[in-house]
Amino acid sequence: MNYPNGKKRKVKQVTSQTNNQGYSNRGMSLEADINVTNTYYLETDKAVIHKKPTPVQIVNVKYPKRSAAVITEAYFKQASTTDYNGIYRNHYIDFEAKETKNKTLFPLSNIHEHQIKHMQSIIKHGGISFFIIRFSSYNETYLFPGENLFPYWYEMLEDGRKSIPYEKITQDGKLIPFQYQVRVDYLSIVDTLYF
Amino acid sequence: MNYPNGKKRKVKQVTSQTNNQGYSNRGMSLEADINVTNTYYLETDKAVIHKKPTPVQIVNVKYPKRSAAVITEAYFKQASTTDYNGIYRNHYIDFEAKETKNKTLFPLSNIHEHQIKHMQSIIKHGGISFFIIRFSSYNETYLFPGENLFPYWYEMLEDGRKSIPYEKITQDGKLIPFQYQVRVDYLSIVDTLYF
Repeated sequence: MNYPNGKKRKVKQVTSQTNNQGYSNRGMSLEADINVTNTYYLETDKAVIHKKPTPVQIVNVKYPKRSAAVITEAYFKQASTTDYNGIYRNHYIDFEAKETKNKTLFPLSNIHEHQIKHMQSIIKHGGISFFIIRFSSYNETYLFPGENLFPYWYEMLEDGRKSIPYEKITQDGKLIPFQYQVRVDYLSIVDTLYF
Repeated sequence: MNYPNGKKRKVKQVTSQTNNQGYSNRGMSLEADINVTNTYYLETDKAVIHKKPTPVQIVNVKYPKRSAAVITEAYFKQASTTDYNGIYRNHYIDFEAKETKNKTLFPLSNIHEHQIKHMQSIIKHGGISFFIIRFSSYNETYLFPGENLFPYWYEMLEDGRKSIPYEKITQDGKLIPFQYQVRVDYLSIVDTLYF
């Protein structure tokens, strides 16, 4: 399957940074799909939502004469917030995107406590915060409100359960429609859930 | 001058990434001051505002056995948005911080057109967007609303003038008060200007 939209290089680059998230080869990675979607939202002036740069701890930089500075040693840092934020219809929007190959459950293992705390703060201050969760085996992508995930998180801290059943995601989340240009049209779900 | 708040390592690290912005040795860099301020806002639950990570184009990563991935070649990328964003009193907040040693004018040379376009979009979608400008020679820091800067930007594109006179910044901006813990209390100015 080819994507004749000139994004291939970007996709490749993104892929290399998300090794650990594994995605189906049916389509682009969730991150790539969301980037295409956000570009569409930006170009149609619907919303201004960006992915934050990957946080990197820079240790060594060389400044060669007559050419750009080269970072020669750096390490990936854990993000202290979510990956995406921006503004839509006067509202602050903040979300995290995750995909899994698992067919029966969504593992909570790659969500971090400070991300949960961050999302709770955002909601408390009047923002909209949610997860975009893709089950790549089914090629289904859900918007799952932060409010619906927090109880599972705290249950996990108490009884050690480390996942949310697939059925719960389908029940308490909303399936995000797919279109070629708006590959993950999550704002259509935001419209129905929050406005 | 010492800052006995355990932030020293962080400050050093920040400094190495902002070589080109030059700042007075009277205090910390503007970026470090804003980071301290944002941490205070976060800890007192006043607002959730973060600096975005420095955008980096990663070219090579090594995965040594039994230790963390090392980025061995990467380059600084130009930011496509502003450096800081978040939420305050239900509102999306977005700003860029710049400091200059110049005593008579604020140079527009290190502001990029896409940043201006981004800020205009933010305001159009209902957000609050501004510059924090420090004249390090005077140790004065101003909040300068985006709306007040745009005309200078377009004047520059037309007649080539590449700066804003210091007097204009002091007239059309608001001096941000300094306190030890809230080193750049810009939200106090946001309160008076936008609410």
